[in-house]
Amino acid sequence: MSNTAGQVIKCRAAVAWEAGKPLVIEEVEVAPPQAGEVRLKILFTSLCHTDVYFWEAKGQTPLFPRIFGHEAGGIVESVGEGVTHLKPGDHALPVFTGECGECPHCKSEESNMCNLLRINTDRGVMINDNKSRFSIKGQPVHHFVGTSTFSEYTVVHAGCVAKINPDAPLDKVCILSCGICTGLGATVNVAKPKPGSSVAIFGLGAVGLAAAEGARMSGASRIIGVDLVSSRFELAKKFGVNEFVNPKDHDKPVQQVIAEMTDGGVDRAVECTGSIQAMISAFECVHDGWGVAVLVGVPKKDDAFKTHPMNFLNERTLKGTFYGNYKPRTDLPNVVEQYMKGELELEKFITHSIPFSEINKAFDYMLKGESIRCIIRMEE
Amino acid sequence: MSNTAGQVIKCRAAVAWEAGKPLVIEEVEVAPPQAGEVRLKILFTSLCHTDVYFWEAKGQTPLFPRIFGHEAGGIVESVGEGVTHLKPGDHALPVFTGECGECPHCKSEESNMCNLLRINTDRGVMINDNKSRFSIKGQPVHHFVGTSTFSEYTVVHAGCVAKINPDAPLDKVCILSCGICTGLGATVNVAKPKPGSSVAIFGLGAVGLAAAEGARMSGASRIIGVDLVSSRFELAKKFGVNEFVNPKDHDKPVQQVIAEMTDGGVDRAVECTGSIQAMISAFECVHDGWGVAVLVGVPKKDDAFKTHPMNFLNERTLKGTFYGNYKPRTDLPNVVEQYMKGELELEKFITHSIPFSEINKAFDYMLKGESIRCIIRMEE
Repeated sequence: MSNTAGQVIKCRAAVAWEAGKPLVIEEVEVAPPQAGEVRLKILFTSLCHTDVYFWEAKGQTPLFPRIFGHEAGGIVESVGEGVTHLKPGDHALPVFTGECGECPHCKSEESNMCNLLRINTDRGVMINDNKSRFSIKGQPVHHFVGTSTFSEYTVVHAGCVAKINPDAPLDKVCILSCGICTGLGATVNVAKPKPGSSVAIFGLGAVGLAAAEGARMSGASRIIGVDLVSSRFELAKKFGVNEFVNPKDHDKPVQQVIAEMTDGGVDRAVECTGSIQAMISAFECVHDGWGVAVLVGVPKKDDAFKTHPMNFLNERTLKGTFYGNYKPRTDLPNVVEQYMKGELELEKFITHSIPFSEINKAFDYMLKGESIRCIIRMEE
Repeated sequence: MSNTAGQVIKCRAAVAWEAGKPLVIEEVEVAPPQAGEVRLKILFTSLCHTDVYFWEAKGQTPLFPRIFGHEAGGIVESVGEGVTHLKPGDHALPVFTGECGECPHCKSEESNMCNLLRINTDRGVMINDNKSRFSIKGQPVHHFVGTSTFSEYTVVHAGCVAKINPDAPLDKVCILSCGICTGLGATVNVAKPKPGSSVAIFGLGAVGLAAAEGARMSGASRIIGVDLVSSRFELAKKFGVNEFVNPKDHDKPVQQVIAEMTDGGVDRAVECTGSIQAMISAFECVHDGWGVAVLVGVPKKDDAFKTHPMNFLNERTLKGTFYGNYKPRTDLPNVVEQYMKGELELEKFITHSIPFSEINKAFDYMLKGESIRCIIRMEE
């Protein structure tokens, strides 16, 4: 046991005091883990769009002060009562969704949407007691999606912690906690392109590039990137994208452009933008008879997916996925091994690295569209 | 070779001279099969809604005179040049869609939508020469979906003919040529419910009952029939339906009723009505995480399938199917064997049997909703 086990730890955390304002590095108190919880020492964390979205708090219920962060790698400092799959010293990735192992979703081979630990962006407390484990001079600070990794120490439900190979470099594999697995799994677990097939990827941000990486790993021969920003194509080539379509360059709908390029449609399409028009195009651009489209991007509240039902009758399939259908505890260790074997290339996603004290720079890089992933080094 | 090979055969056929008017039994001339074609002696045929729909010609391009009929069983009388998989005397089922064996669809494991022989309801001629093989006193009579089985002899593209076990009773297995396989395959080939799972079937006509039969064969434990006509439930019990929901009996949407009955939704749903509202309900009533909905019913031209994309993101799958994803030549012989082994029960679909001379009665039974399948005996 570490000598901090059972005690409140004082450490640095980047606190968001109000919407859209720079984070402030504060000294926070982190309570010990309760039953079924784990306290992690975070070594590396990265910034994902979802952090920025809730930090901006446009359209959502604001919940401040709050500690954001949900892509990270660290080491188990101590575990609460009843936690058997983790022990102090284990290398681990915290994940915003979990795997209780007991609910119908966890028992289903087809779902990773754990009933108990499914993401809840409105919850700022732990599910054990509806309280926060973070405080500043006794005043509670809210959690974010059960992870809050912009802190040197954090408390996470043990079902949201994947134990991984201790040889894996945490400054690389930390990015598997959210966006990269979301895109990668959408392709390899859900779209499942066969070697030699054609895949269209809508949106060449981090998630879309990860979806392209999945297509490359699957041996797809044509990987068509679709994005409104043509300058993204050059970078996307590194991820296997070998053709590019900018819908703005065409008078006809992009699904028609793609169907003409591919003799009737692509074998698979993966939508990673959240634009309802892109979702419809992604579905309508797959080939009849065998085409599969997968939705990944998060839509707006009032969006409606709309298509002629004959597009289904012609034997197309439409699916959606959440976190690439990965079950965090069961599947993440294997994804880490794929990286260790060189099958999955993570380095190319990492465009920046900064010390924790400069965390606000990561927000700037993302808002300016300059970064794919910026690693934040907690130990500076 | 039969002694009629290569010659024009004169025989009886039921000719539709105009939309919605009783068929007339006429003496027709049936030309010999050309290259890649087969002439079949039809022994039994049954009536499907699609025959009635095109006979009524409401909203479609009328094409008369025409010989309808596309569910049938018969014996190969003679074959045209180059036909190698069939020979005179073979027992066979003609099918409205085909399997050329050479196109990308036929080569794909996932599709049965043959490019060459896919159904074309507007075509009233053979694809070889764009001419009819039927005539009355030299005047051509149109074909229907490449089968035209309301005739003692018919000419069919060899790719649309499945050779089957000669021990199989043609007066039973003839119904596999369309509706029964469409519903059955939608469940067993596409929805694929696991033993013990729950399946909702929308529409308890012949196709829906066949979908229920597929659920029964798959070992589903809850088979929920959904129909606006409550009296259909009693009959549906024979096909494994063990719960019933009439949307008219509820104030809330039927998808919500089903979700409440099944702790969040059914594992699988199969839509067999063609109503756009039923399609949306069938999709929205499947469980998040693993639910699969399959569309079978043919929609109206201007229908739009509409749902919130979050229903996909929550890991539901929506697929459509055509002829239950069966490839006629490859798969039908095995479906016949399933019947021969007693796994598939065909008898309960057959509610009536009449001689060919009384074929108009079959239309009456169907229009009054009295029949599931009425077998028409060509040899009286």
